[in-house]
Amino acid sequence: MLKRNRWFVIAGILCVAAGLAAAQERSPQSVRKAVREYRQQNEVEIVRSYVDLLSLPNVASDTANIKLNADAISKMLELRGFRAQQLNVPGAPPVVYGELSTPGAKHTLLLYAHYDGQPVDKAQWSSGPWQPVLRDGPVDGKSIPLETLKGPLNPEWRIYARSASDDKAPIQALLTAIDALKAAKIPIGVNLKVFFEGEEEAGSPHLGEVFRQNADLLKGGIWVLSDGPVNQTRRPQLYFGARGVTDLELTVYGPGRVLHDGHYGNWAPNPAAVLVDLLAHMRDANSHILIPGFYDDVRALTADEKQAIAQSPEVDAQLKQELGLAWTESAGAMLPLAITQPALNIRGIEAGHVEEKAQNAISTTAKASIDFRLVPNQTPERVHQLVEQFITQQGFYIVRQTPDIETRRQHARVIKVIWGQGYKAARTAMDDPAVRPVITTMEQTLGTSVIKMPLLGGSIPMYLFTDVLKTPVVGLPIVNHDNNQHGANENLRLQNLWDGIEIFAGILAGAEKNWK
Amino acid sequence: MLKRNRWFVIAGILCVAAGLAAAQERSPQSVRKAVREYRQQNEVEIVRSYVDLLSLPNVASDTANIKLNADAISKMLELRGFRAQQLNVPGAPPVVYGELSTPGAKHTLLLYAHYDGQPVDKAQWSSGPWQPVLRDGPVDGKSIPLETLKGPLNPEWRIYARSASDDKAPIQALLTAIDALKAAKIPIGVNLKVFFEGEEEAGSPHLGEVFRQNADLLKGGIWVLSDGPVNQTRRPQLYFGARGVTDLELTVYGPGRVLHDGHYGNWAPNPAAVLVDLLAHMRDANSHILIPGFYDDVRALTADEKQAIAQSPEVDAQLKQELGLAWTESAGAMLPLAITQPALNIRGIEAGHVEEKAQNAISTTAKASIDFRLVPNQTPERVHQLVEQFITQQGFYIVRQTPDIETRRQHARVIKVIWGQGYKAARTAMDDPAVRPVITTMEQTLGTSVIKMPLLGGSIPMYLFTDVLKTPVVGLPIVNHDNNQHGANENLRLQNLWDGIEIFAGILAGAEKNWK
Repeated sequence: MLKRNRWFVIAGILCVAAGLAAAQERSPQSVRKAVREYRQQNEVEIVRSYVDLLSLPNVASDTANIKLNADAISKMLELRGFRAQQLNVPGAPPVVYGELSTPGAKHTLLLYAHYDGQPVDKAQWSSGPWQPVLRDGPVDGKSIPLETLKGPLNPEWRIYARSASDDKAPIQALLTAIDALKAAKIPIGVNLKVFFEGEEEAGSPHLGEVFRQNADLLKGGIWVLSDGPVNQTRRPQLYFGARGVTDLELTVYGPGRVLHDGHYGNWAPNPAAVLVDLLAHMRDANSHILIPGFYDDVRALTADEKQAIAQSPEVDAQLKQELGLAWTESAGAMLPLAITQPALNIRGIEAGHVEEKAQNAISTTAKASIDFRLVPNQTPERVHQLVEQFITQQGFYIVRQTPDIETRRQHARVIKVIWGQGYKAARTAMDDPAVRPVITTMEQTLGTSVIKMPLLGGSIPMYLFTDVLKTPVVGLPIVNHDNNQHGANENLRLQNLWDGIEIFAGILAGAEKNWK
Repeated sequence: MLKRNRWFVIAGILCVAAGLAAAQERSPQSVRKAVREYRQQNEVEIVRSYVDLLSLPNVASDTANIKLNADAISKMLELRGFRAQQLNVPGAPPVVYGELSTPGAKHTLLLYAHYDGQPVDKAQWSSGPWQPVLRDGPVDGKSIPLETLKGPLNPEWRIYARSASDDKAPIQALLTAIDALKAAKIPIGVNLKVFFEGEEEAGSPHLGEVFRQNADLLKGGIWVLSDGPVNQTRRPQLYFGARGVTDLELTVYGPGRVLHDGHYGNWAPNPAAVLVDLLAHMRDANSHILIPGFYDDVRALTADEKQAIAQSPEVDAQLKQELGLAWTESAGAMLPLAITQPALNIRGIEAGHVEEKAQNAISTTAKASIDFRLVPNQTPERVHQLVEQFITQQGFYIVRQTPDIETRRQHARVIKVIWGQGYKAARTAMDDPAVRPVITTMEQTLGTSVIKMPLLGGSIPMYLFTDVLKTPVVGLPIVNHDNNQHGANENLRLQNLWDGIEIFAGILAGAEKNWK
């Protein structure tokens, strides 16, 4: 009784304080508090609304469904007073664009996120990728029925669905932040523009074109890009650049028909062995890329970038524990430093069959899927050139389409090389004054300094902001690092959504007065 | 009219000649002729009967269906007067065994074939693996309806089904040979025993036990083993040995959950890259095995084996043309010589995904399926030892079951190594007098010498005949080399079935008098 009474009194004081503050200029801390209270009172509604958004299949190539996503998000914007429109260029999913003007605001904040998700391998998922499930923790945890859900929710619970983290979470967090500010009668201080892309996971092949066609709408403010995870310590972080990417599909050819590997083994070329040999010559098991000249264009880190990495929290030990790793392939470099280097990732290899499906046979093809992560100042064009030179030097004959038998008769080691869309890395200077208002406001909101990373390991086409829009950009991620992003059972930890709502609300309410 | 009359007269003369000959001792040539006539008159019935046999799914692990095969074949034997029985040992598909005694015969011929087939990947087949289809040639050829089939059939037509070649064809050919001899009233000269195994494609794990338990039934005659294809020139051949085999499944481990390969690429170990590195150290692209000591036990070819290989027809040029190959992985050695060496075949590799299913992700495992083809005097036991020593030297920690996370935390490069059943090679001396009657009778039947190969590239547990039954054995294949054996769209060329019937009939009728 005593305890309950005491809480009652405290809550009463808080309510009175909140009412008084709303009438005045709000401190960043009091904004955060009001937003938190709104969220605490509406957790179930927020989760249900997010589940609706996550129920829409969202692979970029799935044109019909991607349009359903765009329409749903447009509607969500309009409900909150945005002037929404879809920016279209031929062959691309629409960009959902919205403006929310604030009378008297002198500055504009632009937020980028993407609503498409990685392709899925449904067999690997514990539940449907677009049938969101709330679980009380890891994927083998108990699922919590949404119909009978009642708050407060355990913040360690997670929503499982494709794009739960990557990258619908910032969309949900931002819109909930706006709802919370409105409910608390806290005004948004800046003009806000949102830009939600629909083909980031397909490599953003049309983003530059959209930027060019809509440059007038998109220039003259601070861009905040929300994608990727927070620090592995679960502490918030900002990043000033992102690795670029370029991917390729390789197919090598064996005999024209599947052969018995007893009758023909060590005579007929085994395409799996040929592919293995090529890949092993391209990189070693410690991730060093062996292609001559590959590192020539890599720009060295500056002193303050090196310092920021040195000051970032030590995460290797925790991650190795979490992931069951006794080693890393970075030759001793800690994660934040390792990802400032380029990578050759083998995304997949496919040849013949294994285990119970294995056949004593030499297959006709072997395939590998690779992506290269690029760092400043590498370009996809130069990387393509170096990789193809190398493949040719290894004795291969490069084709762009499935070779006919005559081509295979004439050339040993025919290889089909197909490059996907790719783009270069970008890295904004960490002391660039143009992004300072966002950083300052975020730190005021949280009441502490945040981790600053020179480079995000993942790829986001940040270079288009700097190259096409000629504007710096800062990355502000909100989702948990252990989200199975890109894999099966992608998930979002509720606490990360809650934190994201508070951070976005703080910036919306407070950034205007931090502009110099 | 004139032509038809002439054929009529010729046919009449032939019939009279056949009738006269049947009453006397038949020459090998006249036996062959009579059998051919029977076949020509019954082509449709033979094909239909074979189609029935091929309609039974026959993967060794499919216990219920494998029993249906055994029962059907037992019945086929009984219909031809065999005393049939099924030889059972626990956990193994039955061996179908049958005896057909010939009054007065002093010698026994034993025929081995197997009725089980390789596992199938149905997605790769143009028609169901157990829904036999007759086509007018290659797999993209026209299919010929069986219901309205009328002879004579084009001998280049092919029957498509699992085990059409490997290895139900000898069963069908032998039984049809018996039918043909009976129809032509030509007596079988020897005592005949047949032995049809049901798990050859699973590595014959119980064959030795069946031999030991039934040694009294199975000793004291000449064993003919009918499996594998005729020469690539389509000429008949005999072989005096076969490579052994031992297979293994490898799994290497990456992070405990799928990771975004941007955020973690070149830090988290990529299991595909680790596997590639290991495989590339195990063999080079020219099929040379790099495992120390691997070739130490290889027995050199004798002078007459070398001579037989040198005298065998040149098939490389034709095969390379047929298979669309500009090179072979045998470092210049022709096929018959190449297969006298051991091989490391990569049967399959599986990690992540490729092409449209590719994800920008680091997978949790990478798997490879390998078989080693062994030659005299290598043993699976010694090969296992050498391979595991090598893997350990490469920095791996070997486990036999899926490792738990604690094991993965403690050991870099954990690898699961699972060996399948395997067996050693065998090679009978080419001048062994014990198999001479079969060779002589076959050559008399064909009226020409046949190609003799010291070693078949494929694996057949010939060593069990020599080691357990202490008897030499000769391999007599009948099926076409271009049969897609072990792969999808396995097929049998009709002419090969027709030839097989004549060869078996010739041996049944004539071998007794060639015994010394």
